[in-house]
Amino acid sequence: MAHSKTIKSERLFHGRIIDLIVEDVEDSPGNIRKREIVSHPGGSAIVPLLDNGDVILVRQYRYPHKIFILEVPAGKLEPNEDPLAAAQRELQEETGYTAGQYEKLTTMYTTPGFCNEVLHIYLATGLKKSEHGQNLDEGEQSLTVEVLPLSTVVEMIDRGELSDSKTIAGILLTERKLKATSH
Amino acid sequence: MAHSKTIKSERLFHGRIIDLIVEDVEDSPGNIRKREIVSHPGGSAIVPLLDNGDVILVRQYRYPHKIFILEVPAGKLEPNEDPLAAAQRELQEETGYTAGQYEKLTTMYTTPGFCNEVLHIYLATGLKKSEHGQNLDEGEQSLTVEVLPLSTVVEMIDRGELSDSKTIAGILLTERKLKATSH
Repeated sequence: MAHSKTIKSERLFHGRIIDLIVEDVEDSPGNIRKREIVSHPGGSAIVPLLDNGDVILVRQYRYPHKIFILEVPAGKLEPNEDPLAAAQRELQEETGYTAGQYEKLTTMYTTPGFCNEVLHIYLATGLKKSEHGQNLDEGEQSLTVEVLPLSTVVEMIDRGELSDSKTIAGILLTERKLKATSH
Repeated sequence: MAHSKTIKSERLFHGRIIDLIVEDVEDSPGNIRKREIVSHPGGSAIVPLLDNGDVILVRQYRYPHKIFILEVPAGKLEPNEDPLAAAQRELQEETGYTAGQYEKLTTMYTTPGFCNEVLHIYLATGLKKSEHGQNLDEGEQSLTVEVLPLSTVVEMIDRGELSDSKTIAGILLTERKLKATSH
């Protein structure tokens, strides 16, 4: 596999958020396979933890699933945008809060089998309501903010009631970090 | 948003694993936006936990990221395949093990902003080496099995050394489940 060679790479679609690329890859001499790859700019997600232990989540309509989903705030990187700057921007835009501190929780591959998306997940603390309030993107007008105790969100994840991958990862890593520092 | 209406839906690409669909969606009267949606058949992932507390992981080359990634075994659903049957099939194919018990850990949306993929994650216990061994798909020939203590894998996740979303979710949920039942 160290020998895996890309013979041909063709961009079949260039979209606003994603590109679709089909590659001919030679896994071993003479053995050529087509690979379907979704190219995504990457994004940042934020676990906003209030001083009282509550977490700020957002609920929004997700077109691919055609349902409302409860998630931590997140968004894609603008061209050349630093992941931390994107986290700060998205937190303010989606929740109307700014944070005093950001700590990296992890870097996550959402679905590495067919997509190169990389998500940077941060814990944000020292939260303050911004005087500017929310500033939702076009097409995010359905978004509502929900504030819940971290322990409640963890229980929802344990019961399988919270299904967004970055939310599961971010919340469980936050819970582990708080436990580790309280010992 | 309850009024969000799909005006037009066009499949621009029909692939082996994914389809690309572009929809015109009316969020509010007269306000029409294009939505890029990747359609995926969904999949199953398995956390295979040996009786001694070790976990069976697989490392494979992932073309979108152009690196080898350590993950729990997983694969996409075949047409009309039951998620549990897919979990059983993938565990055997990728690791050569069969399991005595399967417990659902969660159902996960890998990246709900642009893709409808749903992943069913199971904890598999009562593991036995199958006499048939591994049975890798074409294009999975790079896959190698790595057996590590669950506690080691959890530490790797805490340190940000394990970045696959289904692996982070599956391993942390397994760790929580074991802790809850040991109390």
